[in-house]
Amino acid sequence: MKDDKALGRVLASLDAGLSEALERLKEFIRIPSVGTDPAHDADTRRAAEWLRDQLAGLGFDAAVRETAGQPMVVAHSAPGGRRKILFYGHYDVQPVDPLHLWDRDPFDPAIEDTPDGPVIRGRGACDDKGQLMTFVEAMRAWKAVHGRVPDGLTLLFEGEEESGSPSLQPFLTANEDELRADLALICDTSLYSDGRPAITTQLRGLMGEEIVIRAADRDLHSGSFGGLAANPVQVLANALAAVKDAEGRITLPGFYDGVEELTNQLRADWDDLGFDTEEFLSRVGLKQPIGEKGRSGLEMVWSRPTFEINGIAGGYAGEGFKTVLPAEARAKVSCRLVAGQDPDRIRAALREHVRRFVPEDCTVEFIGHGNSPASRMDISDPAFAAAKEALSEEWGREAAFIGAGGSIPIAGDFQTILGMDTMLIGFGRDDDRIHSPNEKYNVESFSRGARSWARIMARLV
Amino acid sequence: MKDDKALGRVLASLDAGLSEALERLKEFIRIPSVGTDPAHDADTRRAAEWLRDQLAGLGFDAAVRETAGQPMVVAHSAPGGRRKILFYGHYDVQPVDPLHLWDRDPFDPAIEDTPDGPVIRGRGACDDKGQLMTFVEAMRAWKAVHGRVPDGLTLLFEGEEESGSPSLQPFLTANEDELRADLALICDTSLYSDGRPAITTQLRGLMGEEIVIRAADRDLHSGSFGGLAANPVQVLANALAAVKDAEGRITLPGFYDGVEELTNQLRADWDDLGFDTEEFLSRVGLKQPIGEKGRSGLEMVWSRPTFEINGIAGGYAGEGFKTVLPAEARAKVSCRLVAGQDPDRIRAALREHVRRFVPEDCTVEFIGHGNSPASRMDISDPAFAAAKEALSEEWGREAAFIGAGGSIPIAGDFQTILGMDTMLIGFGRDDDRIHSPNEKYNVESFSRGARSWARIMARLV
Repeated sequence: MKDDKALGRVLASLDAGLSEALERLKEFIRIPSVGTDPAHDADTRRAAEWLRDQLAGLGFDAAVRETAGQPMVVAHSAPGGRRKILFYGHYDVQPVDPLHLWDRDPFDPAIEDTPDGPVIRGRGACDDKGQLMTFVEAMRAWKAVHGRVPDGLTLLFEGEEESGSPSLQPFLTANEDELRADLALICDTSLYSDGRPAITTQLRGLMGEEIVIRAADRDLHSGSFGGLAANPVQVLANALAAVKDAEGRITLPGFYDGVEELTNQLRADWDDLGFDTEEFLSRVGLKQPIGEKGRSGLEMVWSRPTFEINGIAGGYAGEGFKTVLPAEARAKVSCRLVAGQDPDRIRAALREHVRRFVPEDCTVEFIGHGNSPASRMDISDPAFAAAKEALSEEWGREAAFIGAGGSIPIAGDFQTILGMDTMLIGFGRDDDRIHSPNEKYNVESFSRGARSWARIMARLV
Repeated sequence: MKDDKALGRVLASLDAGLSEALERLKEFIRIPSVGTDPAHDADTRRAAEWLRDQLAGLGFDAAVRETAGQPMVVAHSAPGGRRKILFYGHYDVQPVDPLHLWDRDPFDPAIEDTPDGPVIRGRGACDDKGQLMTFVEAMRAWKAVHGRVPDGLTLLFEGEEESGSPSLQPFLTANEDELRADLALICDTSLYSDGRPAITTQLRGLMGEEIVIRAADRDLHSGSFGGLAANPVQVLANALAAVKDAEGRITLPGFYDGVEELTNQLRADWDDLGFDTEEFLSRVGLKQPIGEKGRSGLEMVWSRPTFEINGIAGGYAGEGFKTVLPAEARAKVSCRLVAGQDPDRIRAALREHVRRFVPEDCTVEFIGHGNSPASRMDISDPAFAAAKEALSEEWGREAAFIGAGGSIPIAGDFQTILGMDTMLIGFGRDDDRIHSPNEKYNVESFSRGARSWARIMARLV
């Protein structure tokens, strides 16, 4: 931290400018940048241009950059600084259907009072316009106090995040040297729980696979062939059942190679979160954790790899009954992966496992779906401790290093293509209804979010 | 055998009357008695009346009898005789769709020459009009020689066999005393292989069950819940895989209770059939028998009970991929049962087995589908040896006692309701295309079939 007094002035500037900042966010939300809908292409571009203009106004060298799809906004501050930082966000928003479930026009945002304090309601209020603007507003206050935004800072905003970011990898690859930094920041996640800030430091990867087992060249009558001919559903069930042992461990050879135990620090952090596994499961009508024995609920979803059957089909499953031996059975399965696991090796091990169950007169076809390695950030980088301290100060509660059970491919792309770790810090809440009607962002999230970035940047630059 | 000379005259009468008999069969086939189609109700009734008139013409006391569905035809000869015999057949036929795949009007039958000799082609030519008429024509020749049909004979023809015989059980129960006999004959099966006559002496039963396992109250995101929450497809796969051991034996407790080994006589008979398991499987693109180790192919399909998965569904199985933990998984399974097994006990054992795999926060629902015990005829009844001898004489090849892997519920009903065994003797061939376009019946089947019944009846009455 360079200058406590300067930071105090930046925070004061943010507080004083909150109303105006909210007006800017409303203006941004009013642009219906539904990136996935070609009917909104002009709007989506307008949102990119609006952002460019905001950033140019803060002194960034900002431009709208073309891709095969929606444009990118790239903005650079002056070179230099202690650490090159890339901030990422997205200006596209989810479609608003079904419109009749909204209590107001999703693109006519307003501040509403709620028992949890004021919120701003509208499509993108949280995801990701509200969140990305926390950073922009922090930079505006920074400039007001310091006369210029921090050196060595690049901002990257895309318009296809809600469409799976098809142009992101090509753009990163094509502009590798320009975009590479020491650290990436993403503001697109949530507080751990309401009021408790968090930095997501590890994300699970994904390996998806479809297995198709074929036996006879037609469905067979179970009277004529039952007990004699191969039943592909039975073969599939046998193979799938054998993937896990009685302790919930996955039996694929080499599956756990490279998987590391939690560090003591992370274990202590996670224990401190007081995650109530039963309560979490009770929200979906369950109560019993089904996973590896001896692992905590958070370990199961954040730091342990999984094997899940996502879908299965074979034979007759409609009304009534058909006494057939199906010709074919298929399953879609996927593994959530953790750091140290190689998706290709896991896929190969799964295929080898399944093949052992397939009789020689049957065939098996494998169709690969998805292949993203896990991300684990190097939290020994002092930037992580610094950000944690900054967040803890702002929110008055110890910030947590947390994991995420799902994948955020962008963080993986930053590691793979640009060779840098990402700090995922966001201020969303579980009840923000992102992707749903009546999306909102708490004004506290917006205000404290911007203040958080000011505190973090004060420590990083 | 009472009178070899008389039998010779009956056979000669059959030979001399073959053309006329075929004309009668054609007349019968011309009546489009598609019993399952209400548009053909009048035709179906007309077929019943046609049969009644044929039988009345032979001196039977014949009547069309009403049921809740299509009528029955019941015909009695005079009381008396060495043995009361009930002959069963059905006068309804399968629908003819798709009509464009027929080479001729299915209800305008004709004799066609083929490399295998002449055939009569049309819907019902085999199933079951041609088959049942072999018995009627035998009785016609019998009357021509003896002046009257045998005493103690009842004929029962139904019009709902292709619709699952919904009126049969009620009719048998309501007319139990009238219909009870010492032995039933059914002509609705096939030769063992072309030219080799057979008597089916055992039929497998069936126990069908649907298993529905439910976990969370919605599909779950595998990133948030994978590795933690129960996956009902995995639970189902685990339960289904554990139903069989590595030797192909079914592990349900008590499953094999009451199951008897083949008698030496039947084992010798079946061995003598020279069944080529690999050839049989090769017809459907397979080659490897998958069943209990150490059992012959015929044992697997005729005399051993099975467990088969007929259908399975759960989660997302469409195009692409959804990384969900499904809320629900279901399977339809069935066991083919053999004599000695109690379907209710097998069902209870299966349910108990599945329940052991269901975590306490999941539920399982069982839906029963079908419950028919196996039938095994008492072949020590001299009638079986007599019929075997008669068939062997007619066809010039040793007739075989065979089993059937499927169920013929009527034979079970005869055992359960009327307390009598059934001899299933039929003259169909594998290439008769029953239920399909271009159904046919070989004239040899028709002619030798009628002669077979004459020889059998000469020994039985």
